[in-house]
Amino acid sequence: MTLQENVRKPLDRLSEALSDEMGAVNALIRDRMASRHAPRIPEVTAHLIEAGGKRLRPMLTLAAARMVGYGGPYHIHLAATVEFIHTATLLHDDVVDESSQRRGRPTANLLWDNKSSVLVGDYLFARSFQLMVEPGNMRTLEILANASATIAEGEVLQLTAAQDLATTEDIYIQVVRGKTAALFSAATEVGGVIAGAPADQVQALFDYGDALGIAFQIVDDLLDYGGATETIGKNVGDDFRERKLTLPVIKAVAKADELERAFWSRTIEKGDQRDGDLEQALALLARHGAMDAARADALAWAAKAKDALRVLPEHPIRDMLTDLADFVVSRVT
Amino acid sequence: MTLQENVRKPLDRLSEALSDEMGAVNALIRDRMASRHAPRIPEVTAHLIEAGGKRLRPMLTLAAARMVGYGGPYHIHLAATVEFIHTATLLHDDVVDESSQRRGRPTANLLWDNKSSVLVGDYLFARSFQLMVEPGNMRTLEILANASATIAEGEVLQLTAAQDLATTEDIYIQVVRGKTAALFSAATEVGGVIAGAPADQVQALFDYGDALGIAFQIVDDLLDYGGATETIGKNVGDDFRERKLTLPVIKAVAKADELERAFWSRTIEKGDQRDGDLEQALALLARHGAMDAARADALAWAAKAKDALRVLPEHPIRDMLTDLADFVVSRVT
Repeated sequence: MTLQENVRKPLDRLSEALSDEMGAVNALIRDRMASRHAPRIPEVTAHLIEAGGKRLRPMLTLAAARMVGYGGPYHIHLAATVEFIHTATLLHDDVVDESSQRRGRPTANLLWDNKSSVLVGDYLFARSFQLMVEPGNMRTLEILANASATIAEGEVLQLTAAQDLATTEDIYIQVVRGKTAALFSAATEVGGVIAGAPADQVQALFDYGDALGIAFQIVDDLLDYGGATETIGKNVGDDFRERKLTLPVIKAVAKADELERAFWSRTIEKGDQRDGDLEQALALLARHGAMDAARADALAWAAKAKDALRVLPEHPIRDMLTDLADFVVSRVT
Repeated sequence: MTLQENVRKPLDRLSEALSDEMGAVNALIRDRMASRHAPRIPEVTAHLIEAGGKRLRPMLTLAAARMVGYGGPYHIHLAATVEFIHTATLLHDDVVDESSQRRGRPTANLLWDNKSSVLVGDYLFARSFQLMVEPGNMRTLEILANASATIAEGEVLQLTAAQDLATTEDIYIQVVRGKTAALFSAATEVGGVIAGAPADQVQALFDYGDALGIAFQIVDDLLDYGGATETIGKNVGDDFRERKLTLPVIKAVAKADELERAFWSRTIEKGDQRDGDLEQALALLARHGAMDAARADALAWAAKAKDALRVLPEHPIRDMLTDLADFVVSRVT
């Protein structure tokens, strides 16, 4: 690996190594998001799918399949399936969270309406199921259908757990496994399964996706409290304002004295937020080392992800996935 | 058939003939709508699934499989799948339509919130896909995945076509095929396919479901303008107030003079509705015979449904399905 390659971001290197296959995935996505009857559908999906998403999840499927020697063609369908599930989830998330921005652009629910976001999301879910049937492989079908159920379950769990100070780190990880890691681990696992890789390699791919997804979400939650070493164009405090109980807050609540507990109860449980509350929350997170502790957890999950890869055969893609795990947490370290 | 049997509603007779299998379907539904992690899920689904729905769609799957001699067990999974898809659709429909009542009870979006309805609907969709994988039959899987996509497409099409006076009867039928008939025809078709019935019988089952679904929806749209011969506990004028362009209105618009067109444009396209407008709409429907013409269409679709059944072997269930087609339109004739 040259020095220049070494400094380029692992996602860009993966993108380049898998560019032919990624091109095929993008073509399939464009083809399948079309609708002969309802032009509103491609309008809404194009807005989101073309909006410069990183295509991280479908890339994981392609990478997994390539690493264990798959010659194709069905990893393309599985990768497109994964991106469709992800996009459908984003559309519904933005309705649920009443978001107005996604990837720096207005959300579909704002540009059109909640109705379009709900129904076009349903359409993409259905399209994803059509796609996942095509390889004719029962095991990949089960994995992806199960992932869809786990994602929805995680989202519902988050809905009820979000404003409850009794939420533990275990419940948080459970929510994160559902809403984020389930699709990462399904993405990597199906890449191995479609290639007919041996069971220990399939397990390693699952473990990598699972740990990477958890690290990814913890980092996302840290960034929401400004945990970045550089600016990342994200608004600090969105989760606080939406009263989402994420890992840094859970850690701070666990160490809170009576007065601090009253503060969290008022702002998160009761949703009574005033000027200066975000600053106070940040101060409490700092006082109890909650950001550092969450950062350490993210690093531990990234290490676990890298560890899982050791079972897999040596491969340039494997090195990129190792670097990807480091890169995911590099934004907060 | 005794006189007494003849007088009982065909759905009740089907229910009784298929009661063991329907019991198995209900048990499977209860089992699969559970969630170990998120108790909100069974709360919401129980509210809807236990709310005395007629289980018409899963019954169609059981009836189709039985008629062509299937011995089981996978028609149970397919029937439960169909009901899950239906229930998920209802949850999302109520969000999209901002409904407050369903089957005479407050809707889930009102009892909980839109968020829960969106996410629990997603959960049921995902569960339906898990269920449809289990029979291990690629053809039934394709049919049901395609039906899900067609339903979502029909709903989106309705969203954009709804308030547009240029909507033709062809577009109306296309919307109805999507939002209603696709699940009816998939329900009957998979019953034949899982039984390994010959192609002409499978086609007949599809045709029956398709025509029955269209008749069913036209009747529903007629009832919304009070087309019933007896009271049915439905509010007259909901579609008018929601500015949905249904068959009776499409027929009246086609015959409208300039003044009448201005009325429809103001009330439906622009949504500017005043006291007395519903009465005026009803008068226009009557003036142009729009209700009678839509009624005739419903009868023609019911006749088409019955006609399709002739290809199938003689069977008591076949007679009940014939009577069911008559019964569906009897509410407006």
